[in-house]
Amino acid sequence: MNAFEADDRLARDSEMLTKIGLCELRLMNDARWPWLVLVPQRVDVCEIFELTPLDQTMLTFEINLVADALKRATGATKINVGALGNIVRQLHVHIIARNEGDPNWPGPVWGFGSAEAWDADNKAAFTAKLLEHLGS
Amino acid sequence: MNAFEADDRLARDSEMLTKIGLCELRLMNDARWPWLVLVPQRVDVCEIFELTPLDQTMLTFEINLVADALKRATGATKINVGALGNIVRQLHVHIIARNEGDPNWPGPVWGFGSAEAWDADNKAAFTAKLLEHLGS
Repeated sequence: MNAFEADDRLARDSEMLTKIGLCELRLMNDARWPWLVLVPQRVDVCEIFELTPLDQTMLTFEINLVADALKRATGATKINVGALGNIVRQLHVHIIARNEGDPNWPGPVWGFGSAEAWDADNKAAFTAKLLEHLGS
Repeated sequence: MNAFEADDRLARDSEMLTKIGLCELRLMNDARWPWLVLVPQRVDVCEIFELTPLDQTMLTFEINLVADALKRATGATKINVGALGNIVRQLHVHIIARNEGDPNWPGPVWGFGSAEAWDADNKAAFTAKLLEHLGS
């Protein structure tokens, strides 16, 4: 059995913040939106329904834990959750904080324009706030 | 307490196929992709994490039931699952069958171009096949 590793493109496009029970929680390297990704630490799974029932339940729990914390940390108008995987097939779930007037609002974030680098201080502040809300 | 009703825009843009335990299962009026929507029959819920834990588990079960049936009914390369709600705030979950070369592949379906009407025979055939796979 191979050990779990995040897909190369996910590893390049995002940074690991922490591990929750099932998933790696990663921050996208794109400052346009507070954009998180959950990656279940399972090998060769592309679709949510390929997870075991227990893992599906864990993933749901972790999606909602993170989405709720992201909402409280940002005060966003709407949380967007999506599992697409048309490019990166390894199962991963996007959780994004959206606000009126943000880039491509009310359209989706995927495939829109080009990533913008985070300012280091802003990233540290956002990450600290998110992790604080995740723990509370 | 108000009774559940699908949001006006959802009702206009999609057609109800059946009710599963928690959700209405609806087919989008857009033949470009096999595109389903699950609408939990709950009032005043915008985010998945606002559902009760039991409803969250039910929703996960129903998403996976439908996604798996859609994959088997269509043989699609990838199932896309998303809960955005930037326009229609009533909680609803999109489940879409995607294939290489389909409109906007590998980008998302949301906000892309204009809906195309279903041919009545194609719609009937697709719906029958989906419901057959849902029941099996």
